[in-house]
Amino acid sequence: MKAEILSIGTELLLGQITDTNAAWLAQQLPLLGIDLFFISQVGDNRARLTETLGRAHSRADLVICTGGLGPTEDDLTREAISDLLNEPMEVHPALETTLREFFRRRGLVDMPERNLKQASLVRSAQAMDNPVGTAPGWWVEHDSHIIVCMPGVPHEMKTMWQNQVLPRLRPRLPEGIILSRTLKILGKGESAVEEMVGELISSTNPTLATYAKNDGVHLRITAKSQDEATARDLIFETEIQMRERFGTLIYGEDDDTLEGVLGMMLQDRGLTLGVIEVGTGGAITTLLNQAPDSPLFFQGGLVSQQRQMLVGWGLDPALLEGPGILSKEVAEALATAARQTLGTQVGLAVCASAGPADYEGQPPGPIFMAVDLAGSLKSSEGSYRTNPSEIKRLAAVFSLNLLRRALLK
Amino acid sequence: MKAEILSIGTELLLGQITDTNAAWLAQQLPLLGIDLFFISQVGDNRARLTETLGRAHSRADLVICTGGLGPTEDDLTREAISDLLNEPMEVHPALETTLREFFRRRGLVDMPERNLKQASLVRSAQAMDNPVGTAPGWWVEHDSHIIVCMPGVPHEMKTMWQNQVLPRLRPRLPEGIILSRTLKILGKGESAVEEMVGELISSTNPTLATYAKNDGVHLRITAKSQDEATARDLIFETEIQMRERFGTLIYGEDDDTLEGVLGMMLQDRGLTLGVIEVGTGGAITTLLNQAPDSPLFFQGGLVSQQRQMLVGWGLDPALLEGPGILSKEVAEALATAARQTLGTQVGLAVCASAGPADYEGQPPGPIFMAVDLAGSLKSSEGSYRTNPSEIKRLAAVFSLNLLRRALLK
Repeated sequence: MKAEILSIGTELLLGQITDTNAAWLAQQLPLLGIDLFFISQVGDNRARLTETLGRAHSRADLVICTGGLGPTEDDLTREAISDLLNEPMEVHPALETTLREFFRRRGLVDMPERNLKQASLVRSAQAMDNPVGTAPGWWVEHDSHIIVCMPGVPHEMKTMWQNQVLPRLRPRLPEGIILSRTLKILGKGESAVEEMVGELISSTNPTLATYAKNDGVHLRITAKSQDEATARDLIFETEIQMRERFGTLIYGEDDDTLEGVLGMMLQDRGLTLGVIEVGTGGAITTLLNQAPDSPLFFQGGLVSQQRQMLVGWGLDPALLEGPGILSKEVAEALATAARQTLGTQVGLAVCASAGPADYEGQPPGPIFMAVDLAGSLKSSEGSYRTNPSEIKRLAAVFSLNLLRRALLK
Repeated sequence: MKAEILSIGTELLLGQITDTNAAWLAQQLPLLGIDLFFISQVGDNRARLTETLGRAHSRADLVICTGGLGPTEDDLTREAISDLLNEPMEVHPALETTLREFFRRRGLVDMPERNLKQASLVRSAQAMDNPVGTAPGWWVEHDSHIIVCMPGVPHEMKTMWQNQVLPRLRPRLPEGIILSRTLKILGKGESAVEEMVGELISSTNPTLATYAKNDGVHLRITAKSQDEATARDLIFETEIQMRERFGTLIYGEDDDTLEGVLGMMLQDRGLTLGVIEVGTGGAITTLLNQAPDSPLFFQGGLVSQQRQMLVGWGLDPALLEGPGILSKEVAEALATAARQTLGTQVGLAVCASAGPADYEGQPPGPIFMAVDLAGSLKSSEGSYRTNPSEIKRLAAVFSLNLLRRALLK
């Protein structure tokens, strides 16, 4: 099946919002075996919208529209479909009742009359329920082509896709099932991962693909089959091989996050964690705070790049004069200080020059990380030429991975 | 002038990256008086790319392409233009020299031969210099239509837009100039701001528009005129009126950031700042760390949601039993504790339940903020039903604004 995505709204053409709906939808389609050849953004203009919709309808089996379902004169997705198919819009009594009920429940006695068009349909359209907003979606079938219209608000769109579009779409897809599994890897770059995947990178079922992401390299295994059990087996066999090759470089799978995995490891071992951050402005603390049940293992973060503050947290002033803040020695001493000051079994510390200005006489780049695990030290370092927010992000991810590896031992 | 944007790359159609280039470019065009009617994303397929490019070229005066200028077989933007205009690609000797020089400087003796196509042009194309990458851009003029091709890497694209495209574009735009100025407002929502703008919201020159952004409401004043002095005057007159209406609700303008403005205010007064964050995971600390010259005024942040940690930082344990952590009293006591523990003149503290889990027996929502300015206390509070990262962001922005207002006194 060939698909095309249409994102509708003048605010997209003015750059007031970035179209994240199209990227999200684009990620869903390969899992259904649907090919996507075009994405377009078009404004709230009836003629241009109808023209673009018509072209998409003629060259794709499935056109997925988001936006333009609101109640105002600028919301023209329904009108464009009506024009394209030459089918008049008519208010549908059951939809009108639901819509008026929605306003009544909100304590609004009178529904503005302009909202009425949200209760309308054309002959080829079915309404798709929108429990989280006023605008129902449209499922349109005409000449064996499908047009799907969903609201532009991302969470309304995603809910409708899952609950309304997928159940209608699945029976129309070719027999068979597509399953995928993502292994998340830290400690190797994308091309090194690809090399380690080896000859399997050109395998056709399952396929393997690598993606460089914020939290490491994602290795996605995708299998097609007539039935779910066979697809699962195909993925399982390949996953076993990959786990043999990558071992503990794999930190998680599918929806796992690095901070979530780390939180589970600490809780399993009954350990608590304290952090000191120098030059990273709270990047590690922010990540740890996002982990499920964070307060159960994360005691807190101390963030500063002032020398006297670090001394106050227990750093030997002699280390400031000798190796200096940007050193393995200071990172290790601060990991111990984090453990002692915050009263935890595990201390993690990072010292970085992240820029834009020089820090401690060093241009942006260097990162020193250390873990103190009940008195046993482990450290690593790196240097990265990129912008400040990226250096801070790398420092946070690599620090958490250093801690993960220390806990594996 | 009518424009159309084409973002090129199969990774866009697989949802592997979100197209932020198109949104950025879309924001630049209104300032040049250029209308944008369509944006499209298309994959690395020569026929579909040529077709889409041809349609854009036929209906727009200016087609702006990003992506597809790399050295691989998948990079087909040049080939599509060559096909469309029926002009063969030829290697340009000066570009070849520059390209080989680029590889030599990086210590790579041999340039891979496939890179050679990055040194090619068609008859209607001029090369646009790319000092930050290997791929020069193309400026193509044909039948009084323009095609601009820039790299897909965002920072390469933005540099080329500023330094290469704008100077070529300006002389081709209609006479006259468009200037704009943005006033940044905190303390009122977008519709309240629009109401305060009053009758001027429908003014045609200058125009006024409001945008709800992460750091408050942006009020943009845009003037058109034959000459720069007149445009400046038009903006200036309106800006004066807006400043009278909004007063200190305006915290900055154009490229100002809230943390940057606050940093300047603190430095002007010779004050240093310490922060304690409870439940926000370092959101305030992260923002303050991004301010220019942050280490000159920001001493550090202490981040925790553990009771014994707060007591260790100087909180009276009786307050934990009485009003509890989520209270004005604790926020104020922690602002004073921040000042004393971190040895600063100014202390800022926030206590929030940001979710997803309940905190201190309260569901996500409440935020208590307090400032201690050399012993004088100021506090505020709010409650927001949204997701955890949004609650933390709101807590950070509103806390910094509370501090700004305390400093204005």
